[in-house]
Amino acid sequence: MKALRYTGPATMEWVDTADAAVQEPTDALVRVDATTICGTDLHILNGDVPSVDHGRVLGHEAVGTVVDVGAAVSAVAAGDRVLVSCITSCGRCRFCREAAYGQCVGGGGWILGNRVDGTQAELVRVPFADTSTHLLPAGLSTESALMLSDILPTAFEVGVLNGAVAPGDTVAVVGAGPIGLAAIATARLFSPGAIIAIDPAAPRRDAAKRFGADLVVDTTTDPTSVVMARTDGLGADVVIEAVGVPAAFELCADLVRPGGHLANVGVHGSPAALHLERLWNRNITITTGLVDTYSTPRLLAMLAAGHLDGAQFITHRFDLDDIEHAYEVFSRPMDSGALKIALHRRG
Amino acid sequence: MKALRYTGPATMEWVDTADAAVQEPTDALVRVDATTICGTDLHILNGDVPSVDHGRVLGHEAVGTVVDVGAAVSAVAAGDRVLVSCITSCGRCRFCREAAYGQCVGGGGWILGNRVDGTQAELVRVPFADTSTHLLPAGLSTESALMLSDILPTAFEVGVLNGAVAPGDTVAVVGAGPIGLAAIATARLFSPGAIIAIDPAAPRRDAAKRFGADLVVDTTTDPTSVVMARTDGLGADVVIEAVGVPAAFELCADLVRPGGHLANVGVHGSPAALHLERLWNRNITITTGLVDTYSTPRLLAMLAAGHLDGAQFITHRFDLDDIEHAYEVFSRPMDSGALKIALHRRG
Amino acid sequence: MKALRYTGPATMEWVDTADAAVQEPTDALVRVDATTICGTDLHILNGDVPSVDHGRVLGHEAVGTVVDVGAAVSAVAAGDRVLVSCITSCGRCRFCREAAYGQCVGGGGWILGNRVDGTQAELVRVPFADTSTHLLPAGLSTESALMLSDILPTAFEVGVLNGAVAPGDTVAVVGAGPIGLAAIATARLFSPGAIIAIDPAAPRRDAAKRFGADLVVDTTTDPTSVVMARTDGLGADVVIEAVGVPAAFELCADLVRPGGHLANVGVHGSPAALHLERLWNRNITITTGLVDTYSTPRLLAMLAAGHLDGAQFITHRFDLDDIEHAYEVFSRPMDSGALKIALHRRG
Amino acid sequence: MKALRYTGPATMEWVDTADAAVQEPTDALVRVDATTICGTDLHILNGDVPSVDHGRVLGHEAVGTVVDVGAAVSAVAAGDRVLVSCITSCGRCRFCREAAYGQCVGGGGWILGNRVDGTQAELVRVPFADTSTHLLPAGLSTESALMLSDILPTAFEVGVLNGAVAPGDTVAVVGAGPIGLAAIATARLFSPGAIIAIDPAAPRRDAAKRFGADLVVDTTTDPTSVVMARTDGLGADVVIEAVGVPAAFELCADLVRPGGHLANVGVHGSPAALHLERLWNRNITITTGLVDTYSTPRLLAMLAAGHLDGAQFITHRFDLDDIEHAYEVFSRPMDSGALKIALHRRG
Repeated sequence: MKALRYTGPATMEWVDTADAAVQEPTDALVRVDATTICGTDLHILNGDVPSVDHGRVLGHEAVGTVVDVGAAVSAVAAGDRVLVSCITSCGRCRFCREAAYGQCVGGGGWILGNRVDGTQAELVRVPFADTSTHLLPAGLSTESALMLSDILPTAFEVGVLNGAVAPGDTVAVVGAGPIGLAAIATARLFSPGAIIAIDPAAPRRDAAKRFGADLVVDTTTDPTSVVMARTDGLGADVVIEAVGVPAAFELCADLVRPGGHLANVGVHGSPAALHLERLWNRNITITTGLVDTYSTPRLLAMLAAGHLDGAQFITHRFDLDDIEHAYEVFSRPMDSGALKIALHRRG
Repeated sequence: MKALRYTGPATMEWVDTADAAVQEPTDALVRVDATTICGTDLHILNGDVPSVDHGRVLGHEAVGTVVDVGAAVSAVAAGDRVLVSCITSCGRCRFCREAAYGQCVGGGGWILGNRVDGTQAELVRVPFADTSTHLLPAGLSTESALMLSDILPTAFEVGVLNGAVAPGDTVAVVGAGPIGLAAIATARLFSPGAIIAIDPAAPRRDAAKRFGADLVVDTTTDPTSVVMARTDGLGADVVIEAVGVPAAFELCADLVRPGGHLANVGVHGSPAALHLERLWNRNITITTGLVDTYSTPRLLAMLAAGHLDGAQFITHRFDLDDIEHAYEVFSRPMDSGALKIALHRRG
Repeated sequence: MKALRYTGPATMEWVDTADAAVQEPTDALVRVDATTICGTDLHILNGDVPSVDHGRVLGHEAVGTVVDVGAAVSAVAAGDRVLVSCITSCGRCRFCREAAYGQCVGGGGWILGNRVDGTQAELVRVPFADTSTHLLPAGLSTESALMLSDILPTAFEVGVLNGAVAPGDTVAVVGAGPIGLAAIATARLFSPGAIIAIDPAAPRRDAAKRFGADLVVDTTTDPTSVVMARTDGLGADVVIEAVGVPAAFELCADLVRPGGHLANVGVHGSPAALHLERLWNRNITITTGLVDTYSTPRLLAMLAAGHLDGAQFITHRFDLDDIEHAYEVFSRPMDSGALKIALHRRG
Repeated sequence: MKALRYTGPATMEWVDTADAAVQEPTDALVRVDATTICGTDLHILNGDVPSVDHGRVLGHEAVGTVVDVGAAVSAVAAGDRVLVSCITSCGRCRFCREAAYGQCVGGGGWILGNRVDGTQAELVRVPFADTSTHLLPAGLSTESALMLSDILPTAFEVGVLNGAVAPGDTVAVVGAGPIGLAAIATARLFSPGAIIAIDPAAPRRDAAKRFGADLVVDTTTDPTSVVMARTDGLGADVVIEAVGVPAAFELCADLVRPGGHLANVGVHGSPAALHLERLWNRNITITTGLVDTYSTPRLLAMLAAGHLDGAQFITHRFDLDDIEHAYEVFSRPMDSGALKIALHRRG
């Protein structure tokens, strides 16, 4: 099979390699019908994720078709069209039993394209398939479903649900890349009073409007004043960090009202300053989180019913064979306008 | 009357002054039967609290007897023995209507001994008396009740309830001063599996044991290793910060398990580093808070029933006239062993 | 002034009477600009509500203009346009301090048009005005605001929030009268997967569709089969009872899935059978409730922003002087098509 | 092996039968070291549980030693000492993924001694062993652990947690049989203000006192008056039904305060009257539930730490071979004083 291997900082190659295969009785082997690229993949290429060995097949998102299953797999069978979740769940450990699958200590968690070979390949071995894949209904498009591997449950669980968005709330979303846009789209499920999106790039602010932001603010034009003016000087009820740099997090802490929630979704590489001298007495709740994917079945049903649209995130489409080109497009979003890129199996 | 006036950084004086009196129809005038000194009062004396004007009568804790009430006061009357809460609640604003009295924007919040004259005096004017005082039952001792003004609801609400302590949890309390001890005492109401108290001072570690800590750790002997060893390397379910310095907060963030809670109670004067590069994917909840005192009626009933003991916090007793001496004792707790000091009206 | 007095079962009269006036320092006197009639008023006329004395002025809903206030009132002043809430809150009792205003034991709760004279009059005395009225913004229409007195917070709090409606849920609403329709309208704020409305009357089913039901079912055509067919045989996630008769409640208990919520909103006059032999092991949560109106400020902001529309409930309009005719129209909704009736002050 | 077979209403026999064995790759075969008898077993003997076929081996509680496991079992191995939970969890279905294992639709739920052969035998086949058994630490006694199969998680989850017992609460427990006593013992973990146990039998009231009730009331002496007198006429914050007959449930509904919780734990065979004409406006939450056993790991740790004692429930001990005698003793608790009976493997 062909697969995209990480070969060390800044390098990767789309090469022939031995076919993936079922190794454990709980594995499924899945033919990748579509996959996509995540900002985290770029972090890996930057050499920022030391758990990724050289030679690893990248990718943690896919829609595919089951080719083979181990003896202990009962939930899916060869021929089934499935979603491969970015989170693998052993289903047995303490964290999986609490639906905190992202924290799995039984051999799962975020392992695909990280600790085991991933989905940017023609075939992928999915461990613990019974609890790490989801059957897809016939009517749900592959591209819409593909956004369920990571981006939609991440934004919904870690941003919107952790942030406790409620009807009428003012919600500020800092960062309007794919995750910020997914936060906007899923925050709307709770009928907030206003969603304010903050981003330095005009095309992303435009995208935020399309995804449902009521107001967009350029990061460089004092977003704090804008948010305070809209909220009687109190601040936003919920602030969602969807960037992953200290300045963005610190802006979030300035925007949140007394008693409000700051939900961090961004992947961070360095510490932020937490201004406890201003926050200690303000009844703030700050949450962090890796997606657990407990909401995936619910989001799947909502996509199938047409109440959410995953495909709207997809700006570019390529054949899987063109994945190196796709990475190039995805890595310069300001030029390319790329949000999410769908990579389809040929034919 | 006599009152303790703050006269500028590091200075105060116990002086004759005009009697406090009812000014608004919602005021009560209360004779102070007992008051105490809070760590925050020392911060004021250090000049760290700019909202406190020179000349302000200090103190935000008292048990007293109502002397006079304004025309609109109906919940208490002259002669009633009452608790004066550290938090004044207008009862009408958005935050008071949500039981977030500490965030009151209708003229209350923490105002006694801060924005209006306080309780370290023979008389105190209590604004919004109907919603800022609590009738005391005959059987409840003054000294036990006095701990309800601030320390018990603060530790319970901001530490234990925000931290979501549950039966069987491992709870780490960083700092075993009065607030840390109150967190230990009230955490025990939820039958945690183990309470681990961390403090650099041996007498405070001894106090922590008396208040119910199962294990005490010297801050200087790698508390992280101790906590990890007790928790299979995961960390504590709940960590309560009861110091108010960056290093203590940062230690808390090292101690908390994936999916756990870090409840900050300490009063901070400078920012802490938040290591999002380690925390972003660990499902941590961090809370801050000024006490709201919504739990005061419940705690009062528990004290009255003997299920909690406020008086155990009191290590020293003085006449109110000796308040300057009391401050001196309270300000050097390592020498004096002072936890809380009761200042009683003579006679 | 003119007022509608209840004069004993089945009788009332629109008569001249002494003007309402401020009696307590916490009262406001409000000129009624618009009022409406509630199903509860019909229950009173049926003699079903023994707390209502003969001679009582009926009505617990109004939008009006403050004419006078007592000395202790600070939140509203003469000339202010206000909402009069169906629930009066003393703001001081244990229940008011927990935002359970409907359970007020300090002299409030549902008292207007019940234990004290109400809003179906030219003037109404509103006790505890600071905590029982809400200032209305200029841009909010009187008719839309009028639905905030009772119907919208009742359906939202007691139906939708107690029922814990979540995105993607299947919600069954039994009864499509005004309260059921308000439950449909406010359930939509949480983006349920499907709302199924069940009512025996075709015009009400049509109204349910207009208010946002995805499916309407005639009560006589086996609604249980319809709901089970839509939910893989499990039942609805949330079922809202908006009728108030045993058969409707018992239908709700048949419709709810294991682990689901049954939120009773209907006013009941006789017991229902609770089939514990079927329900004991199904993890069902059943809630009852009088509206507390804690959500009124939030709903008010949503109406003002145009995110909800109160006026859509109003099918008929009369001058306040024609209130007896309005009762006649309201009391035969199957003929008249009446949902809510707005009664306006002349001029 | 020997096993206790249900042979039709009122009859059972301890007979030789084919050894239980691993049938599916997810099964474990467990040697029963200790088992016990549940009230539900008596219901089965009464013919009240139609899902139980004639010939079924009874019993759903055991502590044992793993003898063999299927190929897909990884969490336990031959030689391990394990708890067999009364609830079998497939670990994959929608309900198991929400930790509602009792509602498992993937072949689990309460199946042992019901739909498949159970634990009152020398050997038992445990389906889905990875998610239906729990490793036991060496220091935990078999008798204490045995109470984790059913009675402790049932009382804790369905009574105490569903009832939302909080520090200071007044908790009324109706019925002081084994489940009621377990509710008392686990309610104490939340430091309630008072636990009031209500039972018609003096020995059970005595037991309630030993388990931690603060007050015991004879059912025949107007328990409602007693509870009201203790709660200023409001009623109990939490009421737990631990009997399973309509009169007991209806008493609970009389005892609960406005805003309170009624948690049904009892197994019911006929409907109760729900007095909605009194309850509709009182903000009551009523819950039902089969145990899900999500709390079992936590309770296990608490037992191991000595914070709870399972063995205190055990009043009688027999060899497993004497199980028919044990049933006889258990079925007349008023004479025998039986609470729980431990049946031990000989030797």
